[in-house]
This record gives sequence, C-alpha cells and structure tokens, in this order.
Amino acid sequence: MYLRDNLEYSNPESRGLSWDYSQEHLTSEKQSGLKLDAFSPKLFRKNAEIVISKLEKYLADSSIRGLALTNPDVLLQTAKDLMASEGEGIADEEKLAAIIDLYIKTGIQVHSPGYMGRQFSGTIPLAGVIDLVSSIVNQPSSFYEAAQLPNVVESIMADEFNKFIGWERERFAMVTTSGGSLASLTALLAARNDKFPQIWSEGIYGLSGQSRPAIAVGDAHYSISRAAGILGIGEDQIVRLPINQKNQICIEKVRPTLEAAEKRGLKVFCLVASAGTTTMGAFDPIDELADIAQEKNIWLHVDGAHGGSLIVSDQLRHKLKGIAKADSFFLDAHKMMFVPAPCTLLFYKNKEKSYGAFRQDASYVFEKKPDIYTEFDSAEQNFECTKRPLIMNLWVLWTLYGKALFADKINYLCQLTKHAYEILNSEADFQTIHQPEANLLCFRYLPVNLRESAFPDFQVAIRNRIREGGKFFISKVDVNRSGALRVVFMNHQIDTDHFRMLLDEIRKTGQELLNESKRLNELLCI
Amino acid sequence: MYLRDNLEYSNPESRGLSWDYSQEHLTSEKQSGLKLDAFSPKLFRKNAEIVISKLEKYLADSSIRGLALTNPDVLLQTAKDLMASEGEGIADEEKLAAIIDLYIKTGIQVHSPGYMGRQFSGTIPLAGVIDLVSSIVNQPSSFYEAAQLPNVVESIMADEFNKFIGWERERFAMVTTSGGSLASLTALLAARNDKFPQIWSEGIYGLSGQSRPAIAVGDAHYSISRAAGILGIGEDQIVRLPINQKNQICIEKVRPTLEAAEKRGLKVFCLVASAGTTTMGAFDPIDELADIAQEKNIWLHVDGAHGGSLIVSDQLRHKLKGIAKADSFFLDAHKMMFVPAPCTLLFYKNKEKSYGAFRQDASYVFEKKPDIYTEFDSAEQNFECTKRPLIMNLWVLWTLYGKALFADKINYLCQLTKHAYEILNSEADFQTIHQPEANLLCFRYLPVNLRESAFPDFQVAIRNRIREGGKFFISKVDVNRSGALRVVFMNHQIDTDHFRMLLDEIRKTGQELLNESKRLNELLCI
Repeated sequence: MYLRDNLEYSNPESRGLSWDYSQEHLTSEKQSGLKLDAFSPKLFRKNAEIVISKLEKYLADSSIRGLALTNPDVLLQTAKDLMASEGEGIADEEKLAAIIDLYIKTGIQVHSPGYMGRQFSGTIPLAGVIDLVSSIVNQPSSFYEAAQLPNVVESIMADEFNKFIGWERERFAMVTTSGGSLASLTALLAARNDKFPQIWSEGIYGLSGQSRPAIAVGDAHYSISRAAGILGIGEDQIVRLPINQKNQICIEKVRPTLEAAEKRGLKVFCLVASAGTTTMGAFDPIDELADIAQEKNIWLHVDGAHGGSLIVSDQLRHKLKGIAKADSFFLDAHKMMFVPAPCTLLFYKNKEKSYGAFRQDASYVFEKKPDIYTEFDSAEQNFECTKRPLIMNLWVLWTLYGKALFADKINYLCQLTKHAYEILNSEADFQTIHQPEANLLCFRYLPVNLRESAFPDFQVAIRNRIREGGKFFISKVDVNRSGALRVVFMNHQIDTDHFRMLLDEIRKTGQELLNESKRLNELLCI
Repeated sequence: MYLRDNLEYSNPESRGLSWDYSQEHLTSEKQSGLKLDAFSPKLFRKNAEIVISKLEKYLADSSIRGLALTNPDVLLQTAKDLMASEGEGIADEEKLAAIIDLYIKTGIQVHSPGYMGRQFSGTIPLAGVIDLVSSIVNQPSSFYEAAQLPNVVESIMADEFNKFIGWERERFAMVTTSGGSLASLTALLAARNDKFPQIWSEGIYGLSGQSRPAIAVGDAHYSISRAAGILGIGEDQIVRLPINQKNQICIEKVRPTLEAAEKRGLKVFCLVASAGTTTMGAFDPIDELADIAQEKNIWLHVDGAHGGSLIVSDQLRHKLKGIAKADSFFLDAHKMMFVPAPCTLLFYKNKEKSYGAFRQDASYVFEKKPDIYTEFDSAEQNFECTKRPLIMNLWVLWTLYGKALFADKINYLCQLTKHAYEILNSEADFQTIHQPEANLLCFRYLPVNLRESAFPDFQVAIRNRIREGGKFFISKVDVNRSGALRVVFMNHQIDTDHFRMLLDEIRKTGQELLNESKRLNELLCI
C-alpha cells in the first residue's frame, strides 16, 4: 500500500509546510502546499496586527455617524470582486485589509455618538480581545473537561450576581446560553416540564381531554409567542395581560384575566414578566406578579434581556424588586453589560428544576454518578452541545474592573435618558409618550404644519431618511398602533448636546418630507 | 434640575475620561473616572498585543500534549485569587497575562498532535482574527440593516456550497445558525409545520384523534430526541430504524419499520439521516432514503454536523450522494471547516419552506412588502434575534484560500484515519470495529491477558487514565453496548507516527491497569 508506506515513514519534523499524505498527492504539493501557511503562527501575528491597527483607528474615531446604508447588490458585487482571485491560495495582505475596511465601514457605527438606535452596543474592547483567545483555543463549554476555566468561572459569576438577587447559595442555578430567545425557550421548557411532567416523553398529544397549556404575557418580546409555537403549545394559547400607559402589566387586571382564561379551558402554567420591555424599557411589577403566580401555582419567568443588568446598579436595582421570587430570570450581558453577542445568563431559583428543561425526569441527573469534573458540566441544563465559552469576556472584565464599570455606565445612560425626556417636554413640536424607566425613549415629532391623516407614516419616514443620511441612527416602534421614534442610549459618549443635534436633524428631515409631500399634492391637484 | 443643567452644558470635547452626568457624581469622578480607560483605543492595542504574543507562542508549540485536567476546586481558588483586587479599577497587565496563561493551559490542547479526542478542532488562526473584528464592530446579522456585509456574504457562500449540491439557484435557501442542535430544531420545526400546518397556532393538542406526529432516526445525535421532547411531539414518538454493523441505517428495513409505526398510530413526518454519525462517522444511504421519504411524503433532514463538510472535497463528495433530494441539510463549519464555534449552515431545498419554521403560515412573509434591504434579512428564518455574524470567518478564509484549504485538510484527515485502521488491523492486541468512512475511528485494546468479565470498564478506564496523563486526549464511546476507544483526527499535524505512539501509550496504560487489578484481586483473595 503506497499510501500507507508513505505515511508510515514520514517524519513529522521533516515534513515542513506541505501535505504529504500520499505519493499520489505529492505531485500536487506545490499547488496546495502554501495552504498550510494558513496555520502559521507568524502569519497569525501579521494578520492580527493588520486588524488591530484598523480597529484601534476605528475605536478612536469619535465623529458623529450612524450607518452607511448600501444597496445590497452593489455590496454583493464588491464582495465578489474581492473573491475574484479565489483559488490562488495566497493570503493577500491587501485583500485582508480591504475586507476589514469594508466590514467596519458597512456596519452600524456602534462606537459613535451618532448611534442611538438599538439594544446592541459598542462593546468594551477588552471583551473582543478575550473573544479572540476563545476563538483560537476553542473550548466548548458545555463540559468541564473541554473548558475548565470557563466552567469554573461560570460558578463564580453566578455567585457574584446572586449577591444582588439573594437566593440560598446551594439551591439556585445559573446557566449561560446563546441569546435571550434561547434562554426563554429553555426556561419555558423547564416550566412546561415541571407543570406537565409527562409531555417530554408522551408529547402534548397525551394531554387530550385536559386543559390546554397556556402562557400569560404582557408586552413580551416576539420570542415568547414564537416559543409557544415551537413547544407545541400553540400561539393561540398566549394569554395577553392588559398593559397600562407605562407599558407595564396592569397588576389589578391579572387575576381576572387569568380566571377568564381558565374558564376558556386554558391552564396558564407560566407567566412572563419583562424587566425592560423591548418597546420602551418598561419594568413589570415583578413583586406583585410573583405573589399571584405563587398563589396560582404558575411559574414566573422574568425576561430581563435588556433591563436585567440594572441589578448591578445600587441606584437602579429596585426596578427588579421581587426578583428573588421569580422561578427563572435572564439577562443579556451583550446588551447592558456591553460584551460581544451572545452572552446570556439564565438564573433559576431552584437548581433542581434547571435540569428539567431537557428531560422530563430530573432524577436522571441524580442516577448517574457525577465525579468532581462532571459536576461542573452544563450540557444537561443548556440547549447547546457545542457552546462558546460565553462567560469569559464578562468574567475578565469583572475581574479587572469590578462591577463599577457596568454600574456607572448603566447609571449614566439611564440618567441621560431622563434628561432627554425633559428636553422633549420643553419642546412644543415634540410629543413624549412615556416617562423613561431605563435607557429607551419613545417620542413623536408633531410640528404644527403636520396633518397626520395626510401623512400617516410620518415618523417612520423621518426615521428611514435619517438612517439614509448616515449621521444618526435611531429606530421606530409602534405605540398604540401608531408609529413613533425610538432612541436607545447604549453609548456613554453621547450627551444632551448630541440629543439636541438629533432633534434638529429630525426637524430638518421632517420639514423636508412635509415640503416634498406638499409639492407632490400640488402637482396631483393640477 | 441640577442633573439636567450639568448635562446640558457639558462639552463633549472637554469631558475627557470621566463620567460627568451629575453634580452629585462629579465628586465620585476620581473613583470611577479610571473605568472609562476600559474604552481606550490605546489600551485596546496594549491588551491585544499581550494576547497575540501568547497566542503566537501557543500556536508554535508542536509538543505532544492532550489536556492538563485540574481539580475544579483548585482551579476555582486560582480564579478567585486572580479576582482578589476586584474593585480597584485598574486594568492590570500582569493580571491579564496570568488569566490568558491559565485559560490556554487548562484547555484541551486542540492545536497539538496529542489531541485526537473530539470533533472540535484547532481553528484556522485567521478565523479567530476575524472573530475579533466581529466582537468589536458588533453587527447582529439577523437583519441586513445591522450587518450588511455578513448578510451579503451569506448569500455568496450559499451559492458557493450549492455548486456542490446542485439545486436551482433561485429556489433553495441557506441560513446560518448557532450550532447543530439549533439547526436540527429549526429544520424539524419547518418539517412539522409543513406537514401539520395548524400546530403553530393551535398546538399539538389540536391534533387529538389523529395519528401522533413521529420522527424516524438511525444512530442520531442526542439533539434529535431532545427536539422531539422540545417540540411537544414526545421522545416516545422517536421511531428507531435498525442500523447495520457499519453504523448506517439498514435501507431494506426502513419500509417495514415505517409501516409498523403507522400501524401503531404514528405518523412519521420526518426522517433524519446522518452524514457522519457522532459514534463513528458513518454515512446513511441518503440517496435511497430520499426515495423512500418522497414516496411516503416524509421530510428528509440530513444531519451533516460532522460529515457534511466533505461536500467540498472532490474525492469524498460521493459520501453525500443524493443530498440534492433532501429537504433540509446542515453542516457545522466549526467542525470540519475548522472555524471557531458556532458556525452552522442550514440548507433547504425549497426556500419557501425555510420561512415555515417559525410561523405556520408562510404567506406572512409574502404579505409584507420587502424592500431591497429587508430581502436580505434572515430573522424570519433563524431562531436568533441577535445573531453573531457567523459566516464572516468562513467567507474570509474562502476568499483568501479558496475551497482547497478545507478540501485538502479533510482529505488528509480521512486518509490518515484509513491508515490508522490498517495499522490496528496489523496489531494482534487491538480490535477494529468498523471500516472508517471519515476521520472517526473506534477500536478496542484487547490484550491476551485481559479477562473482559473481570474488567468490564477496561476501555473506559484506559481512556480516563490516558486523559489524566496529559499526553494524549482521546474519547470513548459505546458500540453495541460495550465500551470502545475512539479517536477523531482533526489536526493535520498528526501522522501515523503519532498514532503508533498513542497505541504504545494505550498498551502501557492497559497493562498498568491490569497489574493493579491483579494485585487488588490477590489482596482480596488473601
């Protein structure tokens, strides 16, 4: 066997940079030989240096800019042109530099004060550096064996957060997972399997004749009704609790709504509260909801994707009052703790129930004999088999800077939002919609010369044209079925001067649109 | 309002590195002021340089090593000691360096030839560098607006892969998602919602009186039966198709098994085939399975987590014969394409059905008016709301090196595995279990002095002690309910010399264990 012989006697030291696995392929060595260069530590350094210089420059650019929105077909062609020399097999420094430039340029400028639009942030740069390590050393962290430090550190961060929650140290659990949607799906599964233990094996089909499992929500993120669809419960079994003007669940209407649902043959097994709604950052009354949930044997899940991180702030923690009574709770550290996405922390009041999400029979866990290593595994508690060591970025920052880095920034952003609200209140042509509870603010530009019936999409049109202008990036949202402007302050470099500049931009853009519309109407009348 | 006044008149230029959001907090500026250092571009460079030097050294270390397995309590204390100065707020270079050292040291040494144990790999370093960019510029890629280049590039890579699959260009779809378990869940949802359109709204409960939805599998990954539990179908509704000695679905037993299931009141709506089983890398007969699935109106999902990447190799593509007939198919690029986890590509033969995974009513998608930007959004097709721009690493490598980088490495690893199999066959004290189809190989060490009944866990004991030794890292697996050793060749630096060294290590370890067991037995007899 020539193939075998060749391999047998190959000397690793003498192999150098070439594929030598067969006589047959030795002839193609020269063609493919250069590919091994891709694994060279020196090339790694060279490439890293190119990238770091570009990122350093990018981070130092404090100009006001939002987004350079590009026609996708143009961008597609640009990307294809970069690929034109595909197959030549030479790592082209210039090509890499061009790719990085394009990548940076075409993104929302999250590190600029012009970015006020969404719930993702300019990350703390060191977190990116730690992510680089994670990407190279590749330690999937569902298993202690494969990722020792990430698993140990996870238990440390669990205890750090629990200082603010206050559960019994031995009884609670924290699991990291890849995003808020997955955290809610996991918690809803734990809730479903806890209240209907037979579903895991038998399926929901087995419940025929009993009440239908249902989930009660306020102004919940779309991932919750999606979860109802995914879990076989059905979107129709989402019970909507009335919400007030502040976008919170009306506590006095919860009992009657639940009782009406029961009469319709629904069994609400889970109530989802928001700690920071996506619409406007409102906090549901967790404390009171927890009492009702307990009384009715309902699992309380708190979606703290956005506002859960306020728990690290001594000033703002009160927004989450009652959180220790929740059965499950999660926060996206990739939102208000400013690390790269995803980094979601999912907490359970009762550790045992965290094992119920992916097996109906939690005793399975106690049957096997855990050793000192597998005790730190999270594979039974999280959805992922291969999981990125999500916690590392957060832990390193926490170790070097303590909680103050996060708490100070969160406090600043929430204060800034209050100021922006006051500014809006003092301007006659703007309408505020809610008193901000966090760092999200919804409002409308309603100049005297606007006839809303003549221009129903006015707010959305403003938002889109501002986006195209490239200086500011803001978002839009429907409030009471009518469009509104929405800002999310995620960047501490923003101050009220920037917000005032934004208002001027909105005025200018709005008047432009009204003039265009007027001219169009005049044309149509002729 | 003093708070407002202060903000109002603050000048961004003069603010420098301090939090100045209120008069009240100006006094605490000196304490918290240093925290803003965390956002400094210069500090970013300094930290990045520390990390790059360490990673360069790590990548250049070709010594043979597996894993330094540490007692978790010891590691926990080490990590806590690093945190001891928490709150001082100074980014300590030495502390960072110590953390990186600890992180690298305690991981499985995936870049060393001693690592032969699992399906994750030493990543191609440039992919890590691109990941760094992604972590800093933070472009969630479910929406074109937020991540223009990643979304455009996704469509390019879809076309690149489709060159090997061969679908009509306008009709298929590719979606990136965070890992194989999520890809299978997504595809199974698309299948479930396609075959039972009412489930999304009504729930499975609504099916009372009809046949129970069921999923047929061969030697499937655990994520498939988990998905049955998650989706409300129930693990009991998993129909196990008989598998042959080569770990593949026995094609001649498929029809009778499906028909028997039907008689039991099950409606198999999805058949899951593996392209590279987790146990031993076996390929199910996709071509024949597709014909049966089509005949019976069953959705065929191909789990190519491990072996799907063989599609880029001209020599090995035939293993996936018939793939164009599958309804859905995925591969983990973080396995056999050597990029950081996760990076999963999920393909659908029928683009329209990819929109069915998260809504029962695919027409929803066609009701809204897509503009040129939203046409590139993937939020309706993927589970994640905030999704990492997973495709970027792969695209950059593809652009710089072409497919040859991946194909050559895959070819080498699969050839190496065949050689390892031949070596085992020539050694009397080793037993082979299967002819390898990819780069996974299961075998047993069965020396003449072993009485299996006296030492039932012999293979597992060998594996664990070798792991503790730290030189090699291999895994174990049950084959026919009996333990076996398992190697996965993911590293092109491994050659047959290394494999022979491993066999010597196994012999030495096995004989040690037998001697200890003998001494123990002698002691017990006395």
